[in-house]
This record gives sequence, structure tokens and C-alpha cells, in this order.
Amino acid sequence: MSTSTELKHVVLFKFKEGTSDALIAELIEGYKALPGKIEVMKHFEYGADVSIEDLHQGYTHCFITTFPDAAGRDAYIPHQGHKEYVEVLFPHLDKILVFDFHPTVVK
Amino acid sequence: MSTSTELKHVVLFKFKEGTSDALIAELIEGYKALPGKIEVMKHFEYGADVSIEDLHQGYTHCFITTFPDAAGRDAYIPHQGHKEYVEVLFPHLDKILVFDFHPTVVK
Repeated sequence: MSTSTELKHVVLFKFKEGTSDALIAELIEGYKALPGKIEVMKHFEYGADVSIEDLHQGYTHCFITTFPDAAGRDAYIPHQGHKEYVEVLFPHLDKILVFDFHPTVVK
Repeated sequence: MSTSTELKHVVLFKFKEGTSDALIAELIEGYKALPGKIEVMKHFEYGADVSIEDLHQGYTHCFITTFPDAAGRDAYIPHQGHKEYVEVLFPHLDKILVFDFHPTVVK
């Protein structure tokens, strides 16, 4: 078991009611484009909720970015590419959750 | 870019106000013990929130289990080890979030 300096940045979205599937797809493409522009996003994965316990609290999409360390996250937040994406995205969100942690890998 | 049959099971906890650090540590140890008992938990990592955007919605701990597929998750939920842990854990939780997704790895 080891704790990493790596930082996992977990983001959950719930889009506003009435947001079209086409617009949701476009906004997801916008997030997916960021790792190509922002070197410090060293790993990026995402997906739609398929949980069966009804504890997802309304969130529908999850995105996990891995940064080499907290400094990577600190560089990402004010990055121009991130800021421009946030400006386009935020008007369409009902709610968002952002949780960062240094993973301790148990298994 | 590829979408996996793997299923990531993201769990967030907020403990009830007044839960002692010692009890929180004990409850986290209980979760950490599950991968040793439940074979289908093929990867397990966790950590406490270190986010700086104040969008963590009060959650303080994140746990990510990777199952080989949705059937693995389906076997985990009713597993005796999981059920016993939930019984001990739930009285101490203010809130919980569970989000499952099949990761599409972009980078």
C-alpha cells in the first residue's frame, strides 16, 4: 500500500433540465479536448452513470483527471484552455462536484 | 481512445458531525479490508479531499473500486462482507454518493 504524490481530480456534472443530447455531447467533447491542450493532464477518463443503487445524487457524468501532483492541478485551474471551457460549460450545469485526492492504492 | 468493460465505482462519504477521528479511521480501515475479502474488487484506492475550488459539496473521503465488469459490481453489492460493512458504516454517515461508469480513456 502506498500513497502517491499524484492527484486525482474527480468531477461530476448534472446538466440543467432541457439541455439537449446534442449540446451535452458537445460539452463533453469540449472537456475531452482539454488533455490535448494541457500537458499536465497526464491521464483523463470519463463516463456516464450506470449505478444501480440510486445514490448518484442526480449526477450523470464523471470525469477523472490525474495530475502528477498538486502543483499540476494548481497550474490547470487558471489555464486559459480550462477557463474558456468553464465559461462555455457553466451556464448549462444544474450542479457540479469537484473532489481531489492523493490516492492510496490498497489493491 | 477506448471504452472499457471495466466498471469504476466512485464512492464519496461525509461523516456525521461529531464523528471522532478515531472512529473515522476505523471505518476507513473497514472499507480497506473489503478488497482482501472480495476477489472481484480488482483495484481499490482512496483518499481525503484536498480540493481548492470549494466544490466538494461537503464530502470528505473518496474511494474508487474497479470491477472487471458490471457483473462484478452486481456480485459485490449483495456480498456478505459488503453488507456487514454497510451496517456498521451507515449510522455514521451524513451523506453518501455512489457513481458507477465504464471509463472511456482519452489520454
